[in-house]
Amino acid sequence: MSSDTIKVTFLPSGKAIKVSPGVSILESAIAAGLGVKGLCGGKGLCGKCRVKAHYGVEQKISLSELEHLSQEDLDDGMVLACQRKLIADALIEIEPEAINPHRKESLTDAHKLMPVKSAVTKRYLTLPPPSLEDQASDLERIMREVSNGNSLEIGIELLKHLPAILRRSSYRVTAVFLDKSLIGIEEQDTSRDTYGIAFDIGTTTVAGSLVDLNAGRIIATRGATNYQQIFGADVISRIDYSITHENGAGLLQKGAMAAMDEIITGLTRESGITERQIYEAVLVGNTTMIHLFMGLEASFLARSPFVPVFSRALNLSNKDFGLGIHPAGNIHIFPSIAGFVGADTVAVMLATDIQKQPGISLVVDIGTNGEIVLAGKDRILTCSTAAGPAFEGAKILYGMRAVNGAIEGISIDEDVHPDVIGGGSPKGICGSGLIDAVAEMLRVGILDSRGRIADREALIGQVDPKTLDRIQEGKQGREFVLNKSISSSTDKSVMITQKDIRELQLGKGAICAGIRILLGELGLTPREIDRVFLAGAFGNYIKRDSAISIGLFPEIEADRIHPVGNAAGVGASMALASIDVRERATELTRKAEHIELSCRKDFQEEFLNALYFPV
Amino acid sequence: MSSDTIKVTFLPSGKAIKVSPGVSILESAIAAGLGVKGLCGGKGLCGKCRVKAHYGVEQKISLSELEHLSQEDLDDGMVLACQRKLIADALIEIEPEAINPHRKESLTDAHKLMPVKSAVTKRYLTLPPPSLEDQASDLERIMREVSNGNSLEIGIELLKHLPAILRRSSYRVTAVFLDKSLIGIEEQDTSRDTYGIAFDIGTTTVAGSLVDLNAGRIIATRGATNYQQIFGADVISRIDYSITHENGAGLLQKGAMAAMDEIITGLTRESGITERQIYEAVLVGNTTMIHLFMGLEASFLARSPFVPVFSRALNLSNKDFGLGIHPAGNIHIFPSIAGFVGADTVAVMLATDIQKQPGISLVVDIGTNGEIVLAGKDRILTCSTAAGPAFEGAKILYGMRAVNGAIEGISIDEDVHPDVIGGGSPKGICGSGLIDAVAEMLRVGILDSRGRIADREALIGQVDPKTLDRIQEGKQGREFVLNKSISSSTDKSVMITQKDIRELQLGKGAICAGIRILLGELGLTPREIDRVFLAGAFGNYIKRDSAISIGLFPEIEADRIHPVGNAAGVGASMALASIDVRERATELTRKAEHIELSCRKDFQEEFLNALYFPV
Repeated sequence: MSSDTIKVTFLPSGKAIKVSPGVSILESAIAAGLGVKGLCGGKGLCGKCRVKAHYGVEQKISLSELEHLSQEDLDDGMVLACQRKLIADALIEIEPEAINPHRKESLTDAHKLMPVKSAVTKRYLTLPPPSLEDQASDLERIMREVSNGNSLEIGIELLKHLPAILRRSSYRVTAVFLDKSLIGIEEQDTSRDTYGIAFDIGTTTVAGSLVDLNAGRIIATRGATNYQQIFGADVISRIDYSITHENGAGLLQKGAMAAMDEIITGLTRESGITERQIYEAVLVGNTTMIHLFMGLEASFLARSPFVPVFSRALNLSNKDFGLGIHPAGNIHIFPSIAGFVGADTVAVMLATDIQKQPGISLVVDIGTNGEIVLAGKDRILTCSTAAGPAFEGAKILYGMRAVNGAIEGISIDEDVHPDVIGGGSPKGICGSGLIDAVAEMLRVGILDSRGRIADREALIGQVDPKTLDRIQEGKQGREFVLNKSISSSTDKSVMITQKDIRELQLGKGAICAGIRILLGELGLTPREIDRVFLAGAFGNYIKRDSAISIGLFPEIEADRIHPVGNAAGVGASMALASIDVRERATELTRKAEHIELSCRKDFQEEFLNALYFPV
Repeated sequence: MSSDTIKVTFLPSGKAIKVSPGVSILESAIAAGLGVKGLCGGKGLCGKCRVKAHYGVEQKISLSELEHLSQEDLDDGMVLACQRKLIADALIEIEPEAINPHRKESLTDAHKLMPVKSAVTKRYLTLPPPSLEDQASDLERIMREVSNGNSLEIGIELLKHLPAILRRSSYRVTAVFLDKSLIGIEEQDTSRDTYGIAFDIGTTTVAGSLVDLNAGRIIATRGATNYQQIFGADVISRIDYSITHENGAGLLQKGAMAAMDEIITGLTRESGITERQIYEAVLVGNTTMIHLFMGLEASFLARSPFVPVFSRALNLSNKDFGLGIHPAGNIHIFPSIAGFVGADTVAVMLATDIQKQPGISLVVDIGTNGEIVLAGKDRILTCSTAAGPAFEGAKILYGMRAVNGAIEGISIDEDVHPDVIGGGSPKGICGSGLIDAVAEMLRVGILDSRGRIADREALIGQVDPKTLDRIQEGKQGREFVLNKSISSSTDKSVMITQKDIRELQLGKGAICAGIRILLGELGLTPREIDRVFLAGAFGNYIKRDSAISIGLFPEIEADRIHPVGNAAGVGASMALASIDVRERATELTRKAEHIELSCRKDFQEEFLNALYFPV
């Protein structure tokens, strides 16, 4: 633990993290994976991010706090989380009602106000009741007030309920249009209640953001386990399941929908919004997840030439899905670029505005597959590399996801100091921990550039004895033990094996080689990259210096690397709020040139070169 | 039987009717309600209307017959029904395979080639299979061959089947578009098989015409009982049922659908076309029938101010109905003008091209309601009158529908000569028979202009004794017996009562008054009407002179009255074949000015005047 960090502990969860002095309470809460309510994106405008500061917080009361907090509040220690910086080890109490327990990332991004041009529009109408002098039909009575031209789509269910709604409301109704479709007639004036939900369907987790389509504002975000995991941990095993089991595709679809409905239930309960007021869902995710959600044949995604059923944006009716939103609502499926460069990557491209960034921009989204986007010289190149499961903790002997008990970081001085999520004894190591460990092992000389764990004897005098003792000969070759104290007999040993190192080399080599191939295509060197957007949860937790140390990125300076968190969810929310953004998404997919690396003879050579660690 | 008619008898049915000399065999077969195959509308082009003429037919062989019939055929007495006129009592044998037993009316209209601009379009595509160099998705592989812009609608079901269809057919497929929706991908080249079906949903009968959407040709027409009759004979009792019974609306919907599916099954079996090749259904019918088919609330149609749920044209997906056509097919609901001037009337207006006719045109469609359209002076006026059930045989003591056993015509000389459908003893009297009987009773003086059946004593010496004996005093007042022989004790008596006459007066008075109100609106007198289109089955069987005798129409010459048979079905077929015609239908409904007679103070006076019979 370096001395330039402070420890901030949050009540009532007790979660503690280390941050640099000077970050705001809000930023630190986000970094801790805790949600704090707020609507303005940390600008001090909404006054919703009230927390109680017990100690460690700067004392200056801001103008915004004077506006939003009473004297009694201030006397009681209440502050606005976005307005106060942490100056020393701190204790912050988030009021129970302010906690969004499922909230993980990117609160700041999420709370931005987005440009609004919603596909959903509402019109409140006060209609004259029918008479013998005015026998217009129920539908025409509405439509003659609404100048939307002649073309109208309307579903049979709405027509069935129309007479009763009109008469019950004394002809005071709100018409709900989805593009040119009349999807709802609601009693009285509901024009303020227009919501949508943006889903990012991940292999492990599904995230959903509830968006106010009038304001262009994310109200709340939640996550849920993708229940498809029952049928397989990774995309390939799920595709297998969908093919080899009767109604396998149907079960996988239900697995994703269960997660989505759980999120909808949580978000509506939390916000007081009803499910029928959510008129649209925008879906992003990797191509397999989207196919499985839709109940589509995914087998051709898994074998060469890796062809999806569709790639363009689609608008489907919720009538065909039965998600817990408005029954006639729209399911907008994001466009994708290729079988392994999916809608989630397109959403990240939108959120990072990659097309309009000056110079050369790189997007890297690391998971089982690494999706890479290089934008510059008025071109956009994409590729996908089989990054391997190392970054997600799979195929690593003690690998695990970034949950409680996982080593997420390590520093080595006279001994090894693992940072364990949630504190306590480590149960395993997650992707960012693995990268950190390898970077440190390289630094102190335990690993050589070819990835071999050194012979213990050869390092005597060069490495501290406590650290040296951690090198063992195991059944699978050499191992390096990571536990806080290797002498403690109560602790289960958590170690990195020689084989684990090899897995990591394969993964990072594939990503680095993919980046080099795209750079070569534009005639660029790594040093010419102006910025790297590191997407996904992984990108938020990875230590940039460590990533560079192991050669995940080719010769790129750390300060050019920008973690963008849940950029896919943000991109999806932007598209939910504005049909112009959907247009841009389609433009991006048209402009993107996909490089299929399995076609490239030069990929093998780049890959072999990239297997080594930088010296 | 007047001497200027000849009798033509058809084999194998034995059905005989009287026609004027000089009409073609085809025309007489239609008049007899018999179908003869044919594709060209009686132009001698298709050679399909082969019949065997035993006697009574002109002998001249036409050029068309020389082209289509062999010498052996000609020696055998075969002729083309459209090419030969009847010159004397005739015997015509329709070959069994040429009979379309369900075919009732308007064969000539139906067989016209219609202008084609189908909403359904097909494209046969030979696609390159995917490869690592061409990883386009299944959908894009199709869409990049089809330049239909960016907007595409596609259903989830098609996406689910797409991969298998493409691979099974080795990427040779036919894309089926419905407007901008891709509704089907079919293996191999199916571009020739594009069909639709036009339904006219009547209160009693549903008629359906199968249309070749490539050729714009009606292939075959069938009728079926509207099974809604189980739930009520007329629209009001069905609406009652739909309101007062749980799931009543659902049952009524099923009743109509059962008839439609029976027709589809018959038409597909007869033509060898599969149900999946029928991509569209166009529906006309009175407003209540359309509402009940759609499962809509119809109660507000039955009470003032008689407001329908909708009146514009609608396109609905067969997914929501499950008719036995293509599962993603389109259900096009025709627009209507008012609660009682429905889609069927609009279809008649289209079929008669009423907007483009020179001078003044009147359309009258007589049923329980009489729909009246007056076009002229660049205006179109409509109204609906409660014509009463007399014309359909209801509320008439011996009233019945125009089926076997019904008196459909009468002549009175020294005695009464009833024409009974199917021959044999009469079981009752249908609408055309009633009009005929009243006209004859008026002519011989049994009825006076106020509608009273005369006292028998007062007519002695003025009316033949046999006829006079038919006047009886019954329980409900005076009666007039219509049986062939009143002495025959085996025959059940069929009679017209004084009350029946009153019912007819109410009905014809309402229609005549409605016509006069519309004429008054345009400042016209009845003599200025250039033509009257008499729509519906009733219009085909009614004797024009009799209709004029009883004052159904105000002072209009018989030769200006044109029965147009199933014009509603023809209009629906035209709209099925061409989306331009659908545009015209919408224009007609916009242009039409509906006169609500219950708002008109002058209607009562016109009605009371019109109750009398002309003198």
